[in-house]
Amino acid sequence: MTAIVVGYVAKPEGRAALRRAAEEAKLRGARLVVIHSERGGRDLEPEESLQHDAELEDVRTQLAEAGVEADVRQLVRGMDVADDLIAVAEESSADFIVIGLRKRSPVGKLILGSNAQRILLDAPCPVLAVKAEDATKVEGAT
Amino acid sequence: MTAIVVGYVAKPEGRAALRRAAEEAKLRGARLVVIHSERGGRDLEPEESLQHDAELEDVRTQLAEAGVEADVRQLVRGMDVADDLIAVAEESSADFIVIGLRKRSPVGKLILGSNAQRILLDAPCPVLAVKAEDATKVEGAT
Repeated sequence: MTAIVVGYVAKPEGRAALRRAAEEAKLRGARLVVIHSERGGRDLEPEESLQHDAELEDVRTQLAEAGVEADVRQLVRGMDVADDLIAVAEESSADFIVIGLRKRSPVGKLILGSNAQRILLDAPCPVLAVKAEDATKVEGAT
Repeated sequence: MTAIVVGYVAKPEGRAALRRAAEEAKLRGARLVVIHSERGGRDLEPEESLQHDAELEDVRTQLAEAGVEADVRQLVRGMDVADDLIAVAEESSADFIVIGLRKRSPVGKLILGSNAQRILLDAPCPVLAVKAEDATKVEGAT
């Protein structure tokens, strides 16, 4: 069974990536591996940690309801997001990785952050880059 | 019917992108729009022009044999590759764009060229970035 790996953060671009990844997993009967990866591997305060757990529980529930077989993991292990996603894609021989491109907040302009660039270049598989603006379109398309 | 737009050049990264795009088009019953886009819109020498025509004819034949409904266009219209792909993706309300990431020849290291960056950021839809190295893997996966 092939796998699709998606980087998730609780932001518009993360939700857009997750939604698209779930659609793709369903389309091809692939397993979805959701990586909620904290930047820089800093230690979380207990309160933050609880919030993250609740968020991921939500994600698990939504995917189960959508009928997508998913493995939702929180990675906080001193590597950055790019390393996490690339390592998991390698482990799971992923068909592709889905990432969300984030907006630079003040001007609303998209940027290609260093993590996105590294994932695009260093991933062992193709990378599908989704924008937050795609959210409504993707929803409308299904 | 949804469309998938792919940027094609007769190089390993272009072939990898085309192969993957064809698979995706087949998977979802989408129409494939292949854009062979010349950089800078320079005028072609007659000999080059003939060579391009032959290449595109090859691509058309391969796609037809694979049972993929495809529209193969050569765009040489004074816009760069990024503009071409974005314009066609807009026109055809593409589901996504497939691009190949090219290798910097001397060291064999991948680079994210300015065209790839622009397509990733300015495209009205998600973008699937494929590497030339994916070729064998994708082939083996089907």
